[in-house]
Amino acid sequence: MKSYPINKTNKIVRGAKRATYDQPSVFKVLDAGFVCFVSYVFHGQAISIPMAYGRKEDTIILHGSLKNRMLSSLLKNKNASITVMHLDGLVLARSGFHHSVNYRSVTLFGTIEEVKDSIKKAEALQVVIDQMIPNRWNTLRPITEKEIKSTLVVKFTIETASVKIRDEGVVDNIEDMDFPVWAGIVPLRQVALTPEPDSKLNKAIPTPKHVTDYVNKNQTP
Amino acid sequence: MKSYPINKTNKIVRGAKRATYDQPSVFKVLDAGFVCFVSYVFHGQAISIPMAYGRKEDTIILHGSLKNRMLSSLLKNKNASITVMHLDGLVLARSGFHHSVNYRSVTLFGTIEEVKDSIKKAEALQVVIDQMIPNRWNTLRPITEKEIKSTLVVKFTIETASVKIRDEGVVDNIEDMDFPVWAGIVPLRQVALTPEPDSKLNKAIPTPKHVTDYVNKNQTP
Repeated sequence: MKSYPINKTNKIVRGAKRATYDQPSVFKVLDAGFVCFVSYVFHGQAISIPMAYGRKEDTIILHGSLKNRMLSSLLKNKNASITVMHLDGLVLARSGFHHSVNYRSVTLFGTIEEVKDSIKKAEALQVVIDQMIPNRWNTLRPITEKEIKSTLVVKFTIETASVKIRDEGVVDNIEDMDFPVWAGIVPLRQVALTPEPDSKLNKAIPTPKHVTDYVNKNQTP
Repeated sequence: MKSYPINKTNKIVRGAKRATYDQPSVFKVLDAGFVCFVSYVFHGQAISIPMAYGRKEDTIILHGSLKNRMLSSLLKNKNASITVMHLDGLVLARSGFHHSVNYRSVTLFGTIEEVKDSIKKAEALQVVIDQMIPNRWNTLRPITEKEIKSTLVVKFTIETASVKIRDEGVVDNIEDMDFPVWAGIVPLRQVALTPEPDSKLNKAIPTPKHVTDYVNKNQTP
Protein backbone atom coordinates (compact mmCIF):
# COMPACT_ATOMS: atom_id res chain seq x y z
CA MET A 1 0.00 0.00 0.00
CA LYS A 2 1.52 3.27 -1.12
CA SER A 3 1.88 5.97 1.51
CA TYR A 4 2.70 9.61 0.82
CA PRO A 5 5.92 11.11 2.19
CA ILE A 6 5.49 13.20 5.34
CA ASN A 7 7.28 16.54 5.43
CA LYS A 8 6.90 19.85 7.21
CA THR A 9 4.21 21.01 4.78
CA ASN A 10 1.77 18.09 4.99
CA LYS A 11 2.59 16.77 8.47
CA ILE A 12 -0.44 17.04 10.72
CA VAL A 13 0.64 18.31 14.14
CA ARG A 14 -2.67 19.12 15.82
CA GLY A 15 -4.81 16.03 16.29
CA ALA A 16 -2.08 13.81 14.84
CA LYS A 17 -3.88 10.63 15.93
CA ARG A 18 -6.62 11.44 13.38
CA ALA A 19 -4.14 11.71 10.52
CA THR A 20 -3.22 9.15 7.85
CA TYR A 21 -1.03 9.40 4.78
CA ASP A 22 -1.76 6.20 2.85
CA GLN A 23 -2.96 6.41 -0.73
CA PRO A 24 -6.18 4.33 -0.38
CA SER A 25 -7.39 6.65 2.41
CA VAL A 26 -6.56 9.70 0.30
CA PHE A 27 -8.39 8.30 -2.73
CA LYS A 28 -11.42 7.30 -0.65
CA VAL A 29 -11.97 10.87 0.60
CA LEU A 30 -11.37 12.29 -2.89
CA ASP A 31 -13.74 9.82 -4.55
CA ALA A 32 -16.57 10.73 -2.15
CA GLY A 33 -16.80 14.25 -3.60
CA PHE A 34 -16.38 16.39 -6.68
CA VAL A 35 -15.87 19.93 -5.28
CA CYS A 36 -12.44 20.91 -4.00
CA PHE A 37 -10.89 24.11 -2.69
CA VAL A 38 -7.84 25.09 -4.71
CA SER A 39 -5.48 27.56 -3.05
CA TYR A 40 -3.26 30.05 -4.79
CA VAL A 41 -1.34 33.22 -4.03
CA PHE A 42 -2.58 36.45 -5.65
CA HIS A 43 -0.72 39.68 -4.90
CA GLY A 44 0.83 38.07 -1.83
CA GLN A 45 -2.55 36.94 -0.50
CA ALA A 46 -3.59 33.28 -0.24
CA ILE A 47 -7.03 32.70 -1.79
CA SER A 48 -9.04 29.51 -2.00
CA ILE A 49 -11.56 28.87 -4.77
CA PRO A 50 -14.14 26.07 -4.92
CA MET A 51 -13.88 24.06 -8.17
CA ALA A 52 -15.20 20.85 -9.63
CA TYR A 53 -12.56 18.13 -9.92
CA GLY A 54 -12.06 14.62 -11.12
CA ARG A 55 -9.49 12.13 -9.88
CA LYS A 56 -7.67 9.76 -12.22
CA GLU A 57 -5.03 7.63 -10.52
CA ASP A 58 -2.82 10.05 -8.60
CA THR A 59 -3.85 13.10 -10.60
CA ILE A 60 -6.62 15.66 -10.11
CA ILE A 61 -8.17 17.29 -13.18
CA LEU A 62 -9.31 20.91 -12.98
CA HIS A 63 -10.75 23.00 -15.75
CA GLY A 64 -11.95 26.50 -16.46
CA SER A 65 -12.08 29.25 -19.00
CA LEU A 66 -8.90 30.16 -20.85
CA LYS A 67 -8.80 33.40 -18.85
CA ASN A 68 -9.33 31.79 -15.42
CA ARG A 69 -7.15 33.86 -13.09
CA MET A 70 -6.50 31.09 -10.63
CA LEU A 71 -5.63 28.37 -13.14
CA SER A 72 -3.32 30.77 -14.99
CA SER A 73 -1.63 31.63 -11.70
CA LEU A 74 -1.23 27.95 -10.80
CA LEU A 75 0.32 27.21 -14.19
CA LYS A 76 2.84 29.96 -13.57
CA ASN A 77 3.66 28.72 -10.03
CA LYS A 78 3.79 25.06 -11.17
CA ASN A 79 2.52 23.82 -7.81
CA ALA A 80 -0.64 24.08 -5.76
CA SER A 81 -2.54 22.69 -2.82
CA ILE A 82 -6.05 21.29 -2.86
CA THR A 83 -8.41 20.61 0.05
CA VAL A 84 -11.56 18.47 0.09
CA MET A 85 -13.82 18.13 3.13
CA HIS A 86 -16.98 16.17 3.86
CA LEU A 87 -18.97 17.21 6.91
CA ASP A 88 -20.47 14.21 8.71
CA GLY A 89 -21.94 15.52 11.94
CA LEU A 90 -22.10 17.94 14.84
CA VAL A 91 -20.38 16.75 18.01
CA LEU A 92 -22.36 18.37 20.83
CA ALA A 93 -20.44 17.99 24.08
CA ARG A 94 -21.34 19.08 27.62
CA SER A 95 -18.70 21.84 27.47
CA GLY A 96 -18.17 24.33 24.67
CA PHE A 97 -14.50 23.34 24.77
CA HIS A 98 -15.22 19.80 23.57
CA HIS A 99 -17.62 20.71 20.78
CA SER A 100 -16.37 19.44 17.44
CA VAL A 101 -17.51 18.06 14.10
CA ASN A 102 -17.19 14.68 12.51
CA TYR A 103 -15.63 15.00 9.07
CA ARG A 104 -13.35 13.51 6.45
CA SER A 105 -10.80 15.84 4.88
CA VAL A 106 -7.80 15.58 2.63
CA THR A 107 -5.12 18.10 1.74
CA LEU A 108 -3.02 17.52 -1.37
CA PHE A 109 0.24 19.13 -2.43
CA GLY A 110 1.46 18.68 -5.96
CA THR A 111 2.58 19.92 -9.31
CA ILE A 112 0.52 21.56 -12.02
CA GLU A 113 0.70 21.19 -15.77
CA GLU A 114 -1.58 22.12 -18.63
CA VAL A 115 -3.19 19.38 -20.72
CA LYS A 116 -2.85 20.57 -24.32
CA ASP A 117 -3.55 17.61 -26.58
CA SER A 118 -7.21 17.64 -27.75
CA ILE A 119 -7.84 13.93 -27.18
CA LYS A 120 -6.27 14.03 -23.71
CA LYS A 121 -8.26 17.17 -22.89
CA ALA A 122 -11.53 15.44 -23.80
CA GLU A 123 -10.53 12.40 -21.72
CA ALA A 124 -9.70 14.67 -18.79
CA LEU A 125 -13.05 16.47 -19.03
CA GLN A 126 -14.80 13.10 -19.00
CA VAL A 127 -13.08 12.38 -15.67
CA VAL A 128 -14.51 15.61 -14.22
CA ILE A 129 -18.09 15.02 -15.46
CA ASP A 130 -18.12 11.37 -14.42
CA GLN A 131 -16.78 12.29 -10.97
CA MET A 132 -19.77 14.61 -10.53
CA ILE A 133 -22.20 11.91 -11.66
CA PRO A 134 -20.85 8.54 -12.81
CA ASN A 135 -21.54 7.24 -16.33
CA ARG A 136 -22.91 10.52 -17.71
CA TRP A 137 -20.22 11.59 -20.21
CA ASN A 138 -20.95 8.88 -22.77
CA THR A 139 -24.65 9.86 -22.92
CA LEU A 140 -23.92 13.51 -23.79
CA ARG A 141 -23.80 15.38 -27.07
CA PRO A 142 -20.14 14.77 -27.99
CA ILE A 143 -17.72 17.56 -27.19
CA THR A 144 -16.65 19.72 -30.14
CA GLU A 145 -13.18 20.83 -31.13
CA LYS A 146 -14.26 24.43 -30.48
CA GLU A 147 -15.34 23.61 -26.91
CA ILE A 148 -12.08 21.78 -26.28
CA LYS A 149 -10.09 24.75 -27.58
CA SER A 150 -11.94 27.21 -25.35
CA THR A 151 -11.40 25.16 -22.17
CA LEU A 152 -8.27 25.32 -20.06
CA VAL A 153 -7.54 21.86 -18.64
CA VAL A 154 -5.02 21.46 -15.86
CA LYS A 155 -3.57 18.28 -14.40
CA PHE A 156 -2.46 18.33 -10.76
CA THR A 157 -0.20 15.42 -9.77
CA ILE A 158 -0.31 14.50 -6.09
CA GLU A 159 3.18 14.68 -4.59
CA THR A 160 2.17 14.39 -0.97
CA ALA A 161 -1.09 14.31 0.93
CA SER A 162 -2.69 13.96 4.34
CA VAL A 163 -6.07 12.72 5.44
CA LYS A 164 -7.76 13.75 8.65
CA ILE A 165 -10.92 12.02 9.85
CA ARG A 166 -12.99 12.44 12.99
CA ASP A 167 -15.59 9.72 13.31
CA GLU A 168 -16.46 9.20 16.94
CA GLY A 169 -18.79 10.23 19.70
CA VAL A 170 -18.61 12.97 22.30
CA VAL A 171 -15.38 13.22 24.31
CA ASP A 172 -16.08 15.10 27.56
CA ASN A 173 -14.18 15.52 30.82
CA ILE A 174 -15.17 12.85 33.35
CA GLU A 175 -16.10 15.51 35.90
CA ASP A 176 -18.64 16.97 33.43
CA MET A 177 -20.62 13.75 32.93
CA ASP A 178 -23.32 14.70 35.40
CA PHE A 179 -23.84 18.23 34.10
CA PRO A 180 -27.53 18.37 33.09
CA VAL A 181 -27.18 19.06 29.37
CA TRP A 182 -27.93 16.87 26.37
CA ALA A 183 -24.79 15.57 24.65
CA GLY A 184 -24.54 13.57 21.46
CA ILE A 185 -24.04 13.56 17.73
CA VAL A 186 -26.27 15.15 15.10
CA PRO A 187 -25.33 13.31 11.89
CA LEU A 188 -25.21 15.43 8.73
CA ARG A 189 -25.48 14.13 5.16
CA GLN A 190 -25.47 15.66 1.71
CA VAL A 191 -28.50 14.17 -0.03
CA ALA A 192 -29.94 14.39 -3.53
CA LEU A 193 -33.60 15.34 -3.96
CA THR A 194 -35.99 14.46 -6.80
CA PRO A 195 -34.44 15.41 -10.16
CA GLU A 196 -36.07 18.37 -11.92
CA PRO A 197 -36.16 17.88 -15.72
CA ASP A 198 -35.26 20.91 -17.86
CA SER A 199 -38.45 22.72 -18.91
CA LYS A 200 -37.45 22.27 -22.57
CA LEU A 201 -36.76 18.55 -22.24
CA ASN A 202 -38.54 16.27 -24.70
CA LYS A 203 -41.15 14.58 -22.48
CA ALA A 204 -40.46 11.24 -24.13
CA ILE A 205 -37.00 11.10 -22.50
CA PRO A 206 -37.20 9.26 -19.16
CA THR A 207 -34.88 9.90 -16.23
CA PRO A 208 -31.90 7.70 -17.14
CA LYS A 209 -30.37 5.00 -14.95
CA HIS A 210 -27.21 6.99 -14.16
CA VAL A 211 -29.37 9.78 -12.68
CA THR A 212 -31.67 7.51 -10.67
CA ASP A 213 -28.60 5.54 -9.50
CA TYR A 214 -27.06 8.78 -8.26
CA VAL A 215 -30.22 9.90 -6.46
CA ASN A 216 -30.72 6.46 -4.87
CA LYS A 217 -27.12 6.38 -3.68
CA ASN A 218 -27.49 9.85 -2.15
CA GLN A 219 -30.89 9.41 -0.52
CA THR A 220 -31.62 10.36 3.08
CA PRO A 221 -30.76 7.21 5.06
CA MET B 1 -27.45 49.04 2.24
CA LYS B 2 -23.70 48.73 2.72
CA SER B 3 -21.74 47.36 -0.20
CA TYR B 4 -18.11 46.21 -0.05
CA PRO B 5 -15.49 48.02 -2.13
CA ILE B 6 -14.51 46.24 -5.35
CA ASN B 7 -10.80 46.02 -6.10
CA LYS B 8 -8.52 43.78 -8.15
CA THR B 9 -8.43 41.13 -5.40
CA ASN B 10 -12.15 40.56 -4.84
CA LYS B 11 -13.52 41.59 -8.26
CA ILE B 12 -15.21 38.65 -9.93
CA VAL B 13 -14.22 38.54 -13.58
CA ARG B 14 -15.48 35.13 -14.71
CA GLY B 15 -19.26 34.88 -14.46
CA ALA B 16 -19.53 38.51 -13.31
CA LYS B 17 -23.31 38.53 -13.74
CA ARG B 18 -23.54 36.07 -10.83
CA ALA B 19 -21.54 38.32 -8.49
CA THR B 20 -22.75 40.70 -5.80
CA TYR B 21 -20.88 42.74 -3.22
CA ASP B 22 -23.60 44.00 -0.87
CA GLN B 23 -23.36 43.24 2.83
CA PRO B 24 -26.79 41.57 3.30
CA SER B 25 -25.94 39.05 0.55
CA VAL B 26 -22.55 38.38 2.14
CA PHE B 27 -24.08 37.87 5.59
CA LYS B 28 -26.83 35.61 4.21
CA VAL B 29 -24.33 33.15 2.72
CA LEU B 30 -22.17 33.28 5.87
CA ASP B 31 -25.14 32.72 8.19
CA ALA B 32 -26.22 29.62 6.27
CA GLY B 33 -23.09 27.72 7.36
CA PHE B 34 -20.49 27.29 10.07
CA VAL B 35 -17.51 25.73 8.25
CA CYS B 36 -15.21 28.00 6.25
CA PHE B 37 -11.97 27.53 4.37
CA VAL B 38 -9.23 29.80 5.67
CA SER B 39 -6.27 30.34 3.36
CA TYR B 40 -2.73 31.10 4.40
CA VAL B 41 0.76 31.00 2.97
CA PHE B 42 3.18 28.45 4.44
CA HIS B 43 6.71 28.28 3.05
CA GLY B 44 5.53 30.12 -0.07
CA GLN B 45 2.65 27.69 -0.66
CA ALA B 46 -1.02 28.68 -0.33
CA ILE B 47 -2.92 26.24 1.87
CA SER B 48 -6.58 26.20 2.78
CA ILE B 49 -7.87 24.69 6.02
CA PRO B 50 -11.51 23.97 6.94
CA MET B 51 -12.47 25.58 10.27
CA ALA B 52 -15.59 26.29 12.28
CA TYR B 53 -16.52 29.97 12.35
CA GLY B 54 -19.04 32.34 13.80
CA ARG B 55 -20.08 35.70 12.38
CA LYS B 56 -20.78 38.71 14.58
CA GLU B 57 -21.59 41.89 12.67
CA ASP B 58 -18.76 42.29 10.14
CA THR B 59 -16.32 40.03 11.96
CA ILE B 60 -15.63 36.32 11.73
CA ILE B 61 -14.46 34.47 14.83
CA LEU B 62 -11.99 31.59 14.46
CA HIS B 63 -10.41 29.56 17.22
CA GLY B 64 -7.93 26.80 17.76
CA SER B 65 -5.21 25.50 20.00
CA LEU B 66 -2.51 27.94 21.13
CA LYS B 67 -0.08 26.12 18.80
CA ASN B 68 -2.34 26.16 15.73
CA ARG B 69 0.06 26.69 12.83
CA MET B 70 -2.41 28.44 10.60
CA LEU B 71 -3.82 30.85 13.16
CA SER B 72 -0.29 31.75 14.30
CA SER B 73 0.68 32.38 10.70
CA LEU B 74 -2.41 34.54 10.12
CA LEU B 75 -1.64 36.60 13.23
CA LYS B 76 1.83 37.22 11.88
CA ASN B 77 0.54 38.19 8.41
CA LYS B 78 -2.27 40.33 9.85
CA ASN B 79 -4.57 39.56 6.96
CA ALA B 80 -6.33 36.54 5.48
CA SER B 81 -8.98 35.35 3.10
CA ILE B 82 -11.90 33.10 3.93
CA THR B 83 -14.19 31.15 1.59
CA VAL B 84 -17.58 29.59 2.35
CA MET B 85 -19.56 27.55 -0.17
CA HIS B 86 -22.93 25.82 -0.09
CA LEU B 87 -23.60 23.26 -2.81
CA ASP B 88 -27.23 23.36 -3.98
CA GLY B 89 -27.43 21.11 -7.00
CA LEU B 90 -25.99 19.39 -10.05
CA VAL B 91 -26.72 21.14 -13.34
CA LEU B 92 -26.85 18.35 -15.90
CA ALA B 93 -26.80 19.83 -19.40
CA ARG B 94 -26.98 18.14 -22.80
CA SER B 95 -23.31 18.94 -23.42
CA GLY B 96 -20.41 18.40 -21.04
CA PHE B 97 -19.43 22.00 -21.70
CA HIS B 98 -22.59 23.37 -20.04
CA HIS B 99 -22.49 21.15 -16.96
CA SER B 100 -22.33 23.19 -13.81
CA VAL B 101 -23.45 23.30 -10.19
CA ASN B 102 -25.88 25.51 -8.34
CA TYR B 103 -24.19 27.02 -5.31
CA ARG B 104 -23.84 30.01 -3.00
CA SER B 105 -20.30 31.11 -2.20
CA VAL B 106 -18.61 34.02 -0.51
CA THR B 107 -14.98 35.07 -0.40
CA LEU B 108 -13.87 37.48 2.31
CA PHE B 109 -10.67 39.51 2.60
CA GLY B 110 -9.81 41.15 5.86
CA THR B 111 -7.58 41.80 8.80
CA ILE B 112 -6.74 39.48 11.67
CA GLU B 113 -6.25 40.22 15.34
CA GLU B 114 -6.08 38.09 18.46
CA VAL B 115 -8.82 38.38 21.07
CA LYS B 116 -6.99 38.42 24.40
CA ASP B 117 -9.43 39.62 27.06
CA SER B 118 -11.01 36.62 28.86
CA ILE B 119 -14.56 37.94 28.79
CA LYS B 120 -14.34 38.86 25.12
CA LYS B 121 -12.81 35.44 24.34
CA ALA B 122 -15.74 33.68 26.02
CA GLU B 123 -18.20 35.89 24.12
CA ALA B 124 -16.41 35.10 20.86
CA LEU B 125 -16.50 31.36 21.54
CA GLN B 126 -20.24 31.61 22.17
CA VAL B 127 -20.60 33.11 18.69
CA VAL B 128 -18.85 30.05 17.19
CA ILE B 129 -20.90 27.46 19.13
CA ASP B 130 -24.20 29.23 18.48
CA GLN B 131 -23.38 29.54 14.77
CA MET B 132 -22.99 25.75 14.64
CA ILE B 133 -26.28 25.22 16.48
CA PRO B 134 -28.25 28.23 17.73
CA ASN B 135 -29.05 28.69 21.43
CA ARG B 136 -26.70 25.98 22.67
CA TRP B 137 -24.01 27.95 24.52
CA ASN B 138 -26.19 29.00 27.45
CA THR B 139 -27.19 25.37 28.16
CA LEU B 140 -23.57 24.19 28.51
CA ARG B 141 -21.31 23.66 31.47
CA PRO B 142 -19.84 27.18 31.78
CA ILE B 143 -16.41 27.68 30.26
CA THR B 144 -13.50 27.77 32.71
CA GLU B 145 -10.65 30.24 32.92
CA LYS B 146 -8.24 27.38 32.14
CA GLU B 147 -10.15 26.53 28.92
CA ILE B 148 -10.20 30.18 27.89
CA LYS B 149 -6.44 30.45 28.49
CA SER B 150 -5.69 27.36 26.39
CA THR B 151 -7.74 28.56 23.39
CA LEU B 152 -6.44 30.91 20.74
CA VAL B 153 -9.26 33.18 19.57
CA VAL B 154 -8.86 35.23 16.43
CA LYS B 155 -11.11 37.96 15.07
CA PHE B 156 -11.19 38.51 11.33
CA THR B 157 -12.70 41.84 10.24
CA ILE B 158 -14.20 41.84 6.75
CA GLU B 159 -12.58 44.54 4.62
CA THR B 160 -14.00 43.45 1.30
CA ALA B 161 -16.05 40.53 0.05
CA SER B 162 -17.75 39.00 -2.94
CA VAL B 163 -20.69 36.67 -3.28
CA LYS B 164 -21.26 34.37 -6.22
CA ILE B 165 -24.51 32.49 -6.63
CA ARG B 166 -25.76 30.18 -9.36
CA ASP B 167 -29.42 29.37 -8.91
CA GLU B 168 -30.96 28.52 -12.24
CA GLY B 169 -31.77 25.73 -14.63
CA VAL B 170 -29.82 24.18 -17.47
CA VAL B 171 -28.38 26.57 -20.05
CA ASP B 172 -27.72 24.67 -23.28
CA ASN B 173 -27.01 25.72 -26.85
CA ILE B 174 -30.22 26.02 -28.88
CA GLU B 175 -28.90 23.57 -31.49
CA ASP B 176 -28.48 20.91 -28.76
CA MET B 177 -32.11 20.97 -27.57
CA ASP B 178 -33.11 17.92 -29.59
CA PHE B 179 -30.14 15.78 -28.58
CA PRO B 180 -31.67 12.69 -26.92
CA VAL B 181 -30.24 13.01 -23.44
CA TRP B 182 -31.92 13.83 -20.13
CA ALA B 183 -31.14 17.33 -18.90
CA GLY B 184 -32.11 18.92 -15.63
CA ILE B 185 -31.19 19.74 -12.07
CA VAL B 186 -30.47 17.28 -9.27
CA PRO B 187 -30.99 19.38 -6.10
CA LEU B 188 -28.54 18.70 -3.25
CA ARG B 189 -29.12 19.53 0.42
CA GLN B 190 -27.18 19.10 3.62
CA VAL B 191 -29.62 17.50 6.05
CA ALA B 192 -29.52 16.52 9.70
CA LEU B 193 -30.46 12.99 10.71
CA THR B 194 -31.87 11.71 14.00
CA PRO B 195 -29.68 12.87 16.92
CA GLU B 196 -27.66 10.12 18.63
CA PRO B 197 -27.41 10.70 22.39
CA ASP B 198 -24.02 10.10 24.02
CA SER B 199 -23.88 6.56 25.46
CA LYS B 200 -23.10 8.02 28.88
CA LEU B 201 -25.97 10.51 28.81
CA ASN B 202 -28.35 10.44 31.79
CA LYS B 203 -31.47 8.86 30.26
CA ALA B 204 -33.67 11.37 32.12
CA ILE B 205 -32.34 14.21 29.90
CA PRO B 206 -34.62 14.65 26.86
CA THR B 207 -33.46 16.00 23.51
CA PRO B 208 -33.67 19.76 24.06
CA LYS B 209 -35.59 22.22 21.92
CA HIS B 210 -32.45 23.79 20.36
CA VAL B 211 -31.46 20.34 19.02
CA THR B 212 -34.91 19.38 17.72
CA ASP B 213 -35.25 22.88 16.21
CA TYR B 214 -31.96 22.37 14.39
CA VAL B 215 -32.92 18.93 13.10
CA ASN B 216 -36.37 20.11 11.99
CA LYS B 217 -34.88 23.10 10.18
CA ASN B 218 -32.39 20.82 8.38
CA GLN B 219 -34.77 18.00 7.46
CA THR B 220 -34.98 16.50 4.00
CA PRO B 221 -37.59 18.69 2.22
